[in-house]
Amino acid sequence: MEQNFAVVGQKVHKYDGHKKVTGEVEYSTDIVLPGMLQAKILRSPHPHARILNIDTSAASRLPGVKAILTGKDVPQVGFGAERDFSPQWGDQRILKTDKVRYVGDEVAAVAATDEETALEALSLIRVDYEELPGVFDPEAAMLPGAPQIHAGIKNNISIFFPLMFGDTANGMKGADYIIEDKFTTQMVNQCTMGPRCIVSQFDHSGNLKVWRDTQFPYPFRAELSHVLGIPASKINIVRTAVGGGFGSKIDMQPFDPISVLLAKETGRPVKLEYTREEEFIAGHPRHPFAFYLKTGVKKDGTLVGREVKCIVDNGAYNALGPLVPLVAMHAFVGLYRVPYVKYDAYVVYTNKSFGSAFRGFGNPQGTFAVESHMDMIAEKIGMDPLELRLKNANQPNTGTINGLKITSCGLTECLQKAADSGGWAEKRKQNSSQVKKRGIGMASLIHVAGGARVFGLPGAGLSDGTGAIVKVDDFGKVVVLSGATDIGEGADTIQAQIVAETLGVRYEDVVLHGPDTESTPFDLGCHASRTTFCAGNAVKLAALDAKRQILKLAAEHLGVPADQLDIRNRQVLVKEKPEKGLPLTEVLQKAHYDLQGKIVIGTAYYEPPNGITDPQTVTGNMSATYAFGTHVAEVEVDTETGQVQVVNFVAAHDVGKVLNPLGLEGQMQGGVAQGIGYSLTEEVVFDQGKIVNPHFLDYKILTALDMPTVKTINVETIDPEGPFGAKGVAEPGLVPTAAAIANAVYNAVGVRIKDLPITPEKVLQAIEEEAGHNKLFSRNFT
Amino acid sequence: MEQNFAVVGQKVHKYDGHKKVTGEVEYSTDIVLPGMLQAKILRSPHPHARILNIDTSAASRLPGVKAILTGKDVPQVGFGAERDFSPQWGDQRILKTDKVRYVGDEVAAVAATDEETALEALSLIRVDYEELPGVFDPEAAMLPGAPQIHAGIKNNISIFFPLMFGDTANGMKGADYIIEDKFTTQMVNQCTMGPRCIVSQFDHSGNLKVWRDTQFPYPFRAELSHVLGIPASKINIVRTAVGGGFGSKIDMQPFDPISVLLAKETGRPVKLEYTREEEFIAGHPRHPFAFYLKTGVKKDGTLVGREVKCIVDNGAYNALGPLVPLVAMHAFVGLYRVPYVKYDAYVVYTNKSFGSAFRGFGNPQGTFAVESHMDMIAEKIGMDPLELRLKNANQPNTGTINGLKITSCGLTECLQKAADSGGWAEKRKQNSSQVKKRGIGMASLIHVAGGARVFGLPGAGLSDGTGAIVKVDDFGKVVVLSGATDIGEGADTIQAQIVAETLGVRYEDVVLHGPDTESTPFDLGCHASRTTFCAGNAVKLAALDAKRQILKLAAEHLGVPADQLDIRNRQVLVKEKPEKGLPLTEVLQKAHYDLQGKIVIGTAYYEPPNGITDPQTVTGNMSATYAFGTHVAEVEVDTETGQVQVVNFVAAHDVGKVLNPLGLEGQMQGGVAQGIGYSLTEEVVFDQGKIVNPHFLDYKILTALDMPTVKTINVETIDPEGPFGAKGVAEPGLVPTAAAIANAVYNAVGVRIKDLPITPEKVLQAIEEEAGHNKLFSRNFT
Repeated sequence: MEQNFAVVGQKVHKYDGHKKVTGEVEYSTDIVLPGMLQAKILRSPHPHARILNIDTSAASRLPGVKAILTGKDVPQVGFGAERDFSPQWGDQRILKTDKVRYVGDEVAAVAATDEETALEALSLIRVDYEELPGVFDPEAAMLPGAPQIHAGIKNNISIFFPLMFGDTANGMKGADYIIEDKFTTQMVNQCTMGPRCIVSQFDHSGNLKVWRDTQFPYPFRAELSHVLGIPASKINIVRTAVGGGFGSKIDMQPFDPISVLLAKETGRPVKLEYTREEEFIAGHPRHPFAFYLKTGVKKDGTLVGREVKCIVDNGAYNALGPLVPLVAMHAFVGLYRVPYVKYDAYVVYTNKSFGSAFRGFGNPQGTFAVESHMDMIAEKIGMDPLELRLKNANQPNTGTINGLKITSCGLTECLQKAADSGGWAEKRKQNSSQVKKRGIGMASLIHVAGGARVFGLPGAGLSDGTGAIVKVDDFGKVVVLSGATDIGEGADTIQAQIVAETLGVRYEDVVLHGPDTESTPFDLGCHASRTTFCAGNAVKLAALDAKRQILKLAAEHLGVPADQLDIRNRQVLVKEKPEKGLPLTEVLQKAHYDLQGKIVIGTAYYEPPNGITDPQTVTGNMSATYAFGTHVAEVEVDTETGQVQVVNFVAAHDVGKVLNPLGLEGQMQGGVAQGIGYSLTEEVVFDQGKIVNPHFLDYKILTALDMPTVKTINVETIDPEGPFGAKGVAEPGLVPTAAAIANAVYNAVGVRIKDLPITPEKVLQAIEEEAGHNKLFSRNFT
Repeated sequence: MEQNFAVVGQKVHKYDGHKKVTGEVEYSTDIVLPGMLQAKILRSPHPHARILNIDTSAASRLPGVKAILTGKDVPQVGFGAERDFSPQWGDQRILKTDKVRYVGDEVAAVAATDEETALEALSLIRVDYEELPGVFDPEAAMLPGAPQIHAGIKNNISIFFPLMFGDTANGMKGADYIIEDKFTTQMVNQCTMGPRCIVSQFDHSGNLKVWRDTQFPYPFRAELSHVLGIPASKINIVRTAVGGGFGSKIDMQPFDPISVLLAKETGRPVKLEYTREEEFIAGHPRHPFAFYLKTGVKKDGTLVGREVKCIVDNGAYNALGPLVPLVAMHAFVGLYRVPYVKYDAYVVYTNKSFGSAFRGFGNPQGTFAVESHMDMIAEKIGMDPLELRLKNANQPNTGTINGLKITSCGLTECLQKAADSGGWAEKRKQNSSQVKKRGIGMASLIHVAGGARVFGLPGAGLSDGTGAIVKVDDFGKVVVLSGATDIGEGADTIQAQIVAETLGVRYEDVVLHGPDTESTPFDLGCHASRTTFCAGNAVKLAALDAKRQILKLAAEHLGVPADQLDIRNRQVLVKEKPEKGLPLTEVLQKAHYDLQGKIVIGTAYYEPPNGITDPQTVTGNMSATYAFGTHVAEVEVDTETGQVQVVNFVAAHDVGKVLNPLGLEGQMQGGVAQGIGYSLTEEVVFDQGKIVNPHFLDYKILTALDMPTVKTINVETIDPEGPFGAKGVAEPGLVPTAAAIANAVYNAVGVRIKDLPITPEKVLQAIEEEAGHNKLFSRNFT
């Protein structure tokens, strides 16, 4: 049933848009405190080496240097990844004492009166290293005799997940074909426009205040407390504006406690900000993956089973790496109906910069593999790739073999609408014999869209909730105290819309405060596309609580039962007789300035109905709902240069319900831009463990000028649990892009690139190899 | 019944004590914003003059001057006093266009890049005045032919209250004596250590943020909105630390909208801070009063009735002046049982600096008169002043003829304890024939102690409430979002204690945020000794709401009904079996990190059961409870110089219940210090309308070295409505001091000073007159 909404679904301006374009918004880097020091970190120049000695004496004599820390000065407490999953995952240390494990590892830190002095001090610190052999390829790292990166970790395998789902007794039995391939993906960086920055300050009572562009204020507080031994109750994290996150600002990093310890040591506020180069070297990029993928299929396209061996190039430390293959898995297990899946995932250390969370969290990697594979299967059995996908697509109110509960599901509609809009039927066969050949490809996705209960407090369990307070004052101004974190994607806009819609006030009547971990209620943080869903539900419930109070107050004045009243356009009115009513401010003021005065404060805590119920087998309904979508890419491949140009793009997504049309459009366009970059141009390139392109000159992200026309299609499935039917759609925009483009390239020139990115070199080489091959075999493009 | 308390009643450190002594606390004057301008105000040098012309051209050419405002540039909207009582009371304007009415009236304002430039600009503004005759004495101002200060205000009487209470039919009938006298009091200044300061800033969306050391953030926002025509919903008032208030920072002043308008005009933040001289000239001091007082009494000391004519020297503008005589009235009507009172109050304009709220709000004036008078009555009827007071003292669970409901009342106990401790019986007759003569005197008080419902939103009614949110996080940290304003007196300490006690946590587990008018719920503001009572009850109720939630969560885990549980020392335990229980943090974490997670947020709004029910006759129960107390002063008077030295002092107060022993002690000691200054040394001295001592060299406030030993006695009456039985005790400390000292002086040297302050000149002159008089009459000291 279609409802009329006044604010939800309308093209409102971005909540903090004015502040951002005028420079009013406050990023951590804008924080200036009296007496504040600047800090810098000395990082390892070697991918693997033993630290023999650190001499800071010359640096400490430099005027303006206020503190120097090395490993012996800081708590040697393990952190990283999720401590509650496995203690050994906490392999990170604030500053290293024994060994360095990648080019960029933290060795010492300096706080000085200014940045130049801090940098000069770094240059005066002398570190004696004994270089050790490094290993840079995960499959080499797994071999006997490979250099051991972490003591006690056999074959450098941080963790091995041997998982099985569904009909394991029959396995691949009944398959007419078993198709087998290997797919590999590269490391890419989030390239947030705002490098991460932390400012730390102690007061004289030992309370710590931290300004940080974190996606995870509340878990960050707990983690800082853990590593520093400061009670969490003495820490307040103020989330400053976030200049883009994409996952890179989820987990605590060594530079966080370093800043705090320097502030403690000096008794002065300390600012520590990454350079762009540090963002590349010591950021938390997307892991390279290798997938050995085997799919069993019947002649009619029925999927029989999949067997996957997945190797994650973890880099030198875990961070969130061990969890990433568990999300990558969804592409194989959850996107299409498949009765059996075997999934072996190895997370393997190498002497390189280490990955962590990046938009999609393994899913872009997995989806590239599985959706490339689907096209190869279709070709094998002589079926149109669209038909094969439609045949196996998930349907509403079903489930998957790993326990996902599919409620609303618009995958079929996404497939059809994207295909129609992209001109699938016509363009699929448009190949010509020109130098520049065109092709079209598609790929779909599934992703968590109703939270993902994976983070918690060690020993206590997991939480995926958001708390909210909604306060309505005498003047009908609505203040929302929500713990949720806007990282630039527009979460505040969504929250303000939902509250305004629920309370029948104007969008501009709503203001949000916080978050900081003291004054706003708990929110897990910004990850897993959860904020619209979880925080949206939380602020909606708190607004409903406030509304209930208002209608009760109005009922007394109007002599009409509260359940017959509603609020629209700042008027409390009788639903059946809308001409009868009172201005909202009159109701509020009468109630407040009465002898038995009352004011309106609504509260709520929303915890989504989700969760892995069996951690051992990794089964259960990880999310309260799932997002689906299909990308159709049309490419032009220059057969003389191998250059791939995306000339047309359609992105159809099951978004549940459009809450913020402009924000959604931006989210999807941005996703596709990142997806095309991932497909074609972006790659962190290493030489013997050292990144050779840690800057935007040699690392190519797409600009507006590089973008094709992207048509976005919103499929509204009105999710039963989502706020106004909405789902989380933050990550999906880039998930299937690479496979769609790879499939289009294949359609254009008949070569299959299984290793991202799809560079001109690879395409040209493949075309040349294929040309040689074609001399022997004949082939049909279908 | 005595309860055991863990936090309440304990000597905790002041909540913000560390921050204050280390300089961490942020006053408005500490605010520094990028591009901030400094503002200054050009004030009238004449007490009464017509403005003929203002030439700002030279000032505007001065480099660094960014804006100049005169009356024609600003909204000419009336404000001041309580607009909802009477529109004509809004006699104040931001900048004056027609006339100036006192030395200090606002004529023009400048914003410049620095203070020096702003001051230089002021010197370049040329104002042509036509001087008018001024009137400086209210009784002269009431005479026909006196200069008229405000158009349309006949005889310069801003308001006349002709009030009658009780048995008006019989009046003074039955009195054996009718004793008649005149008492007068001087103007005194609050002398806050922190001069008032405002910083105003607009963002690019037209939202106004104001940092101000206000006692009244929420009414201040409404008032700014009214005068500037900016919707209140676009204004956020951040209450910065208050360097003392004593009432001076309650009402909006012209400098507030001036700062905002300069910020609007320049598009830059503007700071406007009072100098000490401005604090004296354009502060909001205590009004001089004249009382013509007639008391009817029977021979046995029974009070028959009182007739009072009270003349308030209002100064040039109303501010809160019209309300002050209504509180002064309580001394005559409410302190002792009296069956009939006639009270005629005249609030009269003069061409002088104008008063407003100052600790006691009329009560120090009225109590000086009535308690001096009580001693004169006692002498007349030959009764000990203590006996006369005991005979007529209010008793618990009674009422007064103006509708006050006396619930808890420790006046009798205060009288007796103060007399005993002060050595009343012995010292009363200690006079010797030495040059330095000692005497002892006493005086009592009544004051509102359970709020005072007098402020509101025009058209909506009155509010006396406080809202509070109490949030308990995973780590047992308790965050209080309360609208209440600490002005240095320790309201935050009290709130933290009450919350800690209620929730069974440690004092240091509680942190307060705000207030600012957006993120914290409404509180009326800091006046009328209401914060401990109203905000104390609000945070207690919110904490109880949180506690209820916690016990419910714990009940599930412990399998014990919630009503059998309690929280003590961060343990949730079974009341009857305290060894059974769980740590509070375990309960909180279990509940939160559960699949059906819950967090704890308590809310409350407390509105005290009080209010003037008949505004026409000014009757009703203004406050939910009342404070009582007795001061006993022992003085030594130098008969050769007239110098009065207070050598010993006892202050016994009915405080309901001691919540914060150290804070209470400080409050009382500070009150007595202000009271002695009021009695002996403090006076704002005018010469033809110009203040001649606007600085601490010539205006003498007491320092620690000037203070006698003050013994404070706390009488705990456990008020039925107060939080843990407490009453408001902010103002009482200085209310009866002057009468006690005047009575002691009389006891020492037999002269009655009826005009404050009791200066050596007045005493010496009175002694000399009395000596002449004594040649004719004989007299007994009793």
